[in-house]
Amino acid sequence: MSTLPPGDAQYAIGVDFGTLSGRAVVVRVSDGTELGSAVFDYPHAVMDNTLAATGEKLPPEWALQVPSDYVDVLRNAVPEAVREAGIDPAQVIGIGTDFTACTMVPTTADGTPLNELPGFESRPHAYVKLWKHHAAQGQADRINALAAERKEEWLARYGGLISSEWEFAKGLQLLEEDPELYERMDHWVEAADWIIWQLTGQYTRNACTAGYKGIYQDGQYPSREFLGALNPDFAGFAEEKVEHTIGALGSSAGTLSAEAAAWTGLPEGIAVAVGNVDAHVAAPAAKATTPGQMVAIMGTSTCHVMNSDRLAEVPGMCGVVDGGIVDGLYGYEAGQSGVGDIFAWFVENQVPASDVEAASNAGVSVHEYLTAQAEREPVGGHGLIALDWHSGNRSVLVDHQLSGTVVGLTLSTKAHEVYRALLEATAFGARKIVETFNASGVPVTEFVAAGGLLRNRFLMQTYSDVLRMPISTIGSDQGPALGSAIHAAVAAGAYPDVRAASEAMGSVNRAAYTPDPDRADAYDLLYAEYEQLHDYFGRGSNQVMRRLKELRRAAYSKATVNA
Amino acid sequence: MSTLPPGDAQYAIGVDFGTLSGRAVVVRVSDGTELGSAVFDYPHAVMDNTLAATGEKLPPEWALQVPSDYVDVLRNAVPEAVREAGIDPAQVIGIGTDFTACTMVPTTADGTPLNELPGFESRPHAYVKLWKHHAAQGQADRINALAAERKEEWLARYGGLISSEWEFAKGLQLLEEDPELYERMDHWVEAADWIIWQLTGQYTRNACTAGYKGIYQDGQYPSREFLGALNPDFAGFAEEKVEHTIGALGSSAGTLSAEAAAWTGLPEGIAVAVGNVDAHVAAPAAKATTPGQMVAIMGTSTCHVMNSDRLAEVPGMCGVVDGGIVDGLYGYEAGQSGVGDIFAWFVENQVPASDVEAASNAGVSVHEYLTAQAEREPVGGHGLIALDWHSGNRSVLVDHQLSGTVVGLTLSTKAHEVYRALLEATAFGARKIVETFNASGVPVTEFVAAGGLLRNRFLMQTYSDVLRMPISTIGSDQGPALGSAIHAAVAAGAYPDVRAASEAMGSVNRAAYTPDPDRADAYDLLYAEYEQLHDYFGRGSNQVMRRLKELRRAAYSKATVNA
Repeated sequence: MSTLPPGDAQYAIGVDFGTLSGRAVVVRVSDGTELGSAVFDYPHAVMDNTLAATGEKLPPEWALQVPSDYVDVLRNAVPEAVREAGIDPAQVIGIGTDFTACTMVPTTADGTPLNELPGFESRPHAYVKLWKHHAAQGQADRINALAAERKEEWLARYGGLISSEWEFAKGLQLLEEDPELYERMDHWVEAADWIIWQLTGQYTRNACTAGYKGIYQDGQYPSREFLGALNPDFAGFAEEKVEHTIGALGSSAGTLSAEAAAWTGLPEGIAVAVGNVDAHVAAPAAKATTPGQMVAIMGTSTCHVMNSDRLAEVPGMCGVVDGGIVDGLYGYEAGQSGVGDIFAWFVENQVPASDVEAASNAGVSVHEYLTAQAEREPVGGHGLIALDWHSGNRSVLVDHQLSGTVVGLTLSTKAHEVYRALLEATAFGARKIVETFNASGVPVTEFVAAGGLLRNRFLMQTYSDVLRMPISTIGSDQGPALGSAIHAAVAAGAYPDVRAASEAMGSVNRAAYTPDPDRADAYDLLYAEYEQLHDYFGRGSNQVMRRLKELRRAAYSKATVNA
Repeated sequence: MSTLPPGDAQYAIGVDFGTLSGRAVVVRVSDGTELGSAVFDYPHAVMDNTLAATGEKLPPEWALQVPSDYVDVLRNAVPEAVREAGIDPAQVIGIGTDFTACTMVPTTADGTPLNELPGFESRPHAYVKLWKHHAAQGQADRINALAAERKEEWLARYGGLISSEWEFAKGLQLLEEDPELYERMDHWVEAADWIIWQLTGQYTRNACTAGYKGIYQDGQYPSREFLGALNPDFAGFAEEKVEHTIGALGSSAGTLSAEAAAWTGLPEGIAVAVGNVDAHVAAPAAKATTPGQMVAIMGTSTCHVMNSDRLAEVPGMCGVVDGGIVDGLYGYEAGQSGVGDIFAWFVENQVPASDVEAASNAGVSVHEYLTAQAEREPVGGHGLIALDWHSGNRSVLVDHQLSGTVVGLTLSTKAHEVYRALLEATAFGARKIVETFNASGVPVTEFVAAGGLLRNRFLMQTYSDVLRMPISTIGSDQGPALGSAIHAAVAAGAYPDVRAASEAMGSVNRAAYTPDPDRADAYDLLYAEYEQLHDYFGRGSNQVMRRLKELRRAAYSKATVNA
């Protein structure tokens, strides 16, 4: 961290609320220098097994959080980051935040989370439903079936599928499983907006989650008729629980309240930016706010965000939202369900003891060891093709019944060869997304990588070779928090808009990796094989993967019955 | 071993010459009781890296042996087995042998291996070419292309493909790479027959290898014209180097010479049975000599042998030979290229340290641990389908450019689940072979398992469930050696024919495993998926596996050039 004297400098605070912790970063407004940061782990982490308050066992696929944990991040990480930066808090001009999404808080009219009401602490539905709460799949299936049947226009904006993770599926589950609590709930609030409510005392919905997660398109939510057809008691859901003033990204949601100033040690009255989402806020942090710049936030999974001045229907995208990434442009989102988690699964489950030992002897992680082994071999040397669908395929097939596959195994196949085939498979998956955007009238002109997988240089080079594109890389290790600070600076009026702030404060290494023509040629041949298998297994020629999952479910349900 | 007093009993010796050692067994002629056995490891084992005599590096895919090692088995293992049995050698009435095939010895007119001629010990082609010498693929490809072009009638008897392992491909390689040595060679002798020559002093070709490996069909070898078209100097190969008196299986090849009596400690003049092959000789050992009894010798790979009274063309069989298993019936052979070696590869390369440690803590092998884990789960519970082609597919696709595949992987897939999918894949491969025989007019009426994989009871049960057939199991741990002793007893006149001897001396547990109807129903669904993938990848819809191997070869040849 820089230790420049503060002088007359101005600072913005960015706070990134992740799945298990929140991170605050202090950023200099003039040039984006990061001066200090601090992380605070949520005391209740993720409740996916039991409800902390009662010890009650939760059903499968649930994932809850406790809203006060988010406030604890403001109380702890923000002042600590300011201390570490060595700045005078009086020089902070604004604060911005980003959050996981879709993460939903049920509240009263004044924003009190229902779990904080006396007598409600024992009710699971009173808590935050974290993004990865997957227990509303039945509701999502009904939403999708009805929307397709009724030819709802908004469905195409989501690549044809509404996720069980989003606001409506989770809300319908709440209604149907705890109607009394649904009745008591005045607002069904994105955590991204709830935290802003805590900071400002005012509720403003951000344009990003309203569009991507709240099915808010062209100024409208799904109709009463549609919602009532799902469940008569759900007819008023949008009007009564969801609808609220929308705030554009980068605008101010209000000013820091006295209470929040006391929590954070920041000056009362400074600007608070409209809430935002971790992936989307990374775009300005990587100086990627103009049409055609696709930012891939590569971690456990990969989220792709890209602006365009055109509204297009891109098959298999997660969504397109007007002002969804920066105000005034259409924001596109796509995703790969599994990337880093596939590599992690492989290391955990398919790497022999001999390689683990060799890695340990070499003083490197198993990932590093396998990468180093793989890197030495020529493209195609492993004789393998993998499909990266271990947790399904988000874009462009939008099918979570798909599964992973490896073709080409021989008795001489080694672990590092399969590992490399998996790395490559995710690169092929990325190429498929880029080519689909290109073919849909919203071409990708630059590919910018961000996220934890940046540290695997061989992976990045492989993406460049496979995509036949230079790969730019974000300059910050804390992209989302930096992006939030950029939004804070704009909300405080330091810059006219997010794009200008991004140019001054963002950070990118342009064309950090460039494709090698020979490797790119060889990868073209492998990609052709990937595409053929992709279409065979993914587009209905052979629905073996779907049937295998059905057999699996049937096997276990029968086994349970017999037991 | 029994310690019954010898009394007036008669004994036969069976010697099984394997890849790394020879095993002698002493068997009571009246009932097949095994009284003693001994193993002798070949001093030179397999030379696949360097030539022992000179230290010269051998090219890739070579595999040589030293013929005197086989004689050392006679000198050591036979007397030791007799000692262990506690019998009087005078009560031994005959000796029989079986060998790996096609394993070829180049000899002079009197049977002296060329490597024993002064000055020839440094020439690799002077040595035994072991069955797994795979360096004659180029020659095999030319044989197959020419035979297909000329529509040679014998080609159909081999499922359409002559192997690089067999007599003609290996002989052509010898001619083309060491013509001087080819000139010096008077006989190109199966090791199965060479060992009989050593025992009797006479050269007799056995009907089994002559047919399966020597392309001897309907009393003829491939024509001068055919051979001359391969290479003008090869025109006389069959007549000059290969052709010799054929001996029926179970008949006597002569009597034990004084020299061989001295080596073995057995009486001079006792009967010596015509040579035979390990897999084929196991059929009478398992009492499976009548039409429709398919014996599967399940080890590293699986060899299927079955008699029939009908001559049929079974797609993808290895061969059909008149008297190839027992005299008077058509003997069919089919095979699965990889079975136990796929399981071994998996354990070596894809099992995480945690499972290895758990197995060790439980005091069981990794195979046993994974099997026990897998066994607890319902059919289809893993959600996986594998193709068992890691070393290609022998029957029924006859394509060694195919490779292994696993479909259905998820982030929760565990090693024991993949292991089970691989076990099942080999069972599906066996079902495909059985169904192909059934559909070709030579139905399989009983499935008899032999070989090392018998000890995995879950695997056996899976085969029974998948095949929807009872599985009988051979009663002896030393099937081939027992089978050789059966042939010795017949050659000595103790029984009128192999079938009668088999009834008295063979050993089988009929229907040791029977199919469970529920599991069989569930496996039918998985087998349907296997079949669809089998045909997609194996019958030309998508030749991705072939192309991946081409890319692999190209990648490495280019990498070598660049290096």
